[in-house]
Amino acid sequence: MGKIGKQTVILKNKPNIISSYSIVGPKEGKGPMSAYFDKIMPDDMCGQNTYEKAEQKFMEKAVFGAIDKAKMRPQDIDMFLSGDLLNQIISASFTAREFDTTFIGLFGACSTMTESLAIGSCLVDGGYVDNVLCATCSHFASAERQFRYPLELGTQRPPTAQWTVTGAGATILECTGKGPYIEAVTFGKVSDYGITDVNNMGAAMAPSALHTLKAHFIDMKRTPEDYDLIFTGDLGKLGSEILIDLLEKEGYKLGVNYNDCGCLIFDKEQKTFMGGSGCGCSASVLNSYVITKLLNKEVKSVLFLSTGALLSPLSSQQGLSIPGIAHAISIRSD
Amino acid sequence: MGKIGKQTVILKNKPNIISSYSIVGPKEGKGPMSAYFDKIMPDDMCGQNTYEKAEQKFMEKAVFGAIDKAKMRPQDIDMFLSGDLLNQIISASFTAREFDTTFIGLFGACSTMTESLAIGSCLVDGGYVDNVLCATCSHFASAERQFRYPLELGTQRPPTAQWTVTGAGATILECTGKGPYIEAVTFGKVSDYGITDVNNMGAAMAPSALHTLKAHFIDMKRTPEDYDLIFTGDLGKLGSEILIDLLEKEGYKLGVNYNDCGCLIFDKEQKTFMGGSGCGCSASVLNSYVITKLLNKEVKSVLFLSTGALLSPLSSQQGLSIPGIAHAISIRSD
Repeated sequence: MGKIGKQTVILKNKPNIISSYSIVGPKEGKGPMSAYFDKIMPDDMCGQNTYEKAEQKFMEKAVFGAIDKAKMRPQDIDMFLSGDLLNQIISASFTAREFDTTFIGLFGACSTMTESLAIGSCLVDGGYVDNVLCATCSHFASAERQFRYPLELGTQRPPTAQWTVTGAGATILECTGKGPYIEAVTFGKVSDYGITDVNNMGAAMAPSALHTLKAHFIDMKRTPEDYDLIFTGDLGKLGSEILIDLLEKEGYKLGVNYNDCGCLIFDKEQKTFMGGSGCGCSASVLNSYVITKLLNKEVKSVLFLSTGALLSPLSSQQGLSIPGIAHAISIRSD
Repeated sequence: MGKIGKQTVILKNKPNIISSYSIVGPKEGKGPMSAYFDKIMPDDMCGQNTYEKAEQKFMEKAVFGAIDKAKMRPQDIDMFLSGDLLNQIISASFTAREFDTTFIGLFGACSTMTESLAIGSCLVDGGYVDNVLCATCSHFASAERQFRYPLELGTQRPPTAQWTVTGAGATILECTGKGPYIEAVTFGKVSDYGITDVNNMGAAMAPSALHTLKAHFIDMKRTPEDYDLIFTGDLGKLGSEILIDLLEKEGYKLGVNYNDCGCLIFDKEQKTFMGGSGCGCSASVLNSYVITKLLNKEVKSVLFLSTGALLSPLSSQQGLSIPGIAHAISIRSD
């Protein structure tokens, strides 16, 4: 128990997922995951007057949704671990302002959901906090104008582009209960294969997904077949094909038990090209579809890995390439 | 042992500070802390062609400086916990790219030094990682152009302004050795008293320093007199005066054992108005002056608290106020 291998920790006190909540915008609500989300907003502005304020509303609704679902009060939450894509993670910080709990701000780009769960589950497992609320969010319009172009410009999207999910997800962990629990976490390292195209995030993130998955399989002495389901965060269609190829070269075969949240959340008719992305992508799919499958005992073991592209518009403007990172969590429902 | 009170954790395995390293720019090198820094760079561009690349160089030099000082190799580091002020914490992420270790990206603005040490010491204490390297940095010129105005504009600075420190600090923690160790951490909550002036960070952060200090004293059943020295991160002159007043109203008196890193790092002749600020301020003072005093046994107990203003230029432009946060660590040298 505790640390095994190089990057993995087995959690001896089984941090339970005592609550999870997902909320998405109207476009995501029309996609294949529709039936699983807790809430689909009819208006992606959430009644706010800026995209960024709307994004924060999604986060707030996810956080308070998870608290309500657990029949807890906001003051019962011991620690809030959160981050998002916006500069200085304002969606997370301004949500933390809304309730009286300790706050750890994180930045792992689209890997933030599993980053928060990986750190949160260690802190709960070790008795350093009684429970943690882990959450993240993203918004298509705020991400486009921050990372690429303002929507008003009507810029054409290249075929390798992904569509930032408008949505949020929140999970509460506590070492009590009999729900699905986090068995192990594998912390990721930063990889950089020299991709400089901000419209090809999948390719930038695939190597980090490879490294974390490989580290997980080696540390746990397992293979992909040992899991009922394996999910990557938001590599999208191109990125997940690259990952399958890269893993095959390393001797691991991802089979029909593998899928990518970016590929699951939209269907082809929705014209998102390579699929979904953004912190809200893996957050909303994990806290709806994946956890429902575990709760219903349709599956017993899930390996879940969110991937992040650690770029900034500024680093791109200064000609730097895009580093990637991915953290994995193994969830079981015995 | 473990969690005591509402926000505090006592670390039973005494995470030791096995190495610390500080590096600053030429202006900081001329200040009162001069003799304590490991390295003073003669050129604040560090041989780079942009301010942001220079900032990352400071971080890199601090990180590898701490590793060298510990007589370790980069691959001996188990986890790197880091963040900075730049959008998408690129100084931290791009430094993480330079060595083969797991990475947790954090954002706590100028509270990042104690945020990383608070999380890092729990992870080391619980045996989830063998050791952690915690680091952060800031750069005057990159911060000015991101948060306020490009230096080229020559904008006049108001008297409440602070001067972002060009520098970085890094600390390695491991549960072995006989050096100063982290006895306890108090995690902070987000406070917002409605300050909207981006040139008055001290006032925005003072309430969060108050809350974390008060929580620490209550949880630990201590008073300010129980510490040889108490430091706040970078409230600056105005902010620390506000803190002294606020604490007095709560029945706690900060005496001559109290100081603020922002007040310590520059002297009056350096015309920084309210003093230093930025992630690099508390990071460089902690990893030089403070740890030296503990190592030399001049003092035995230090309460150290970095404070962060969680604003973004975007949230300010949209009329939102500035939330603050502060995390505290208690360091002992028995």
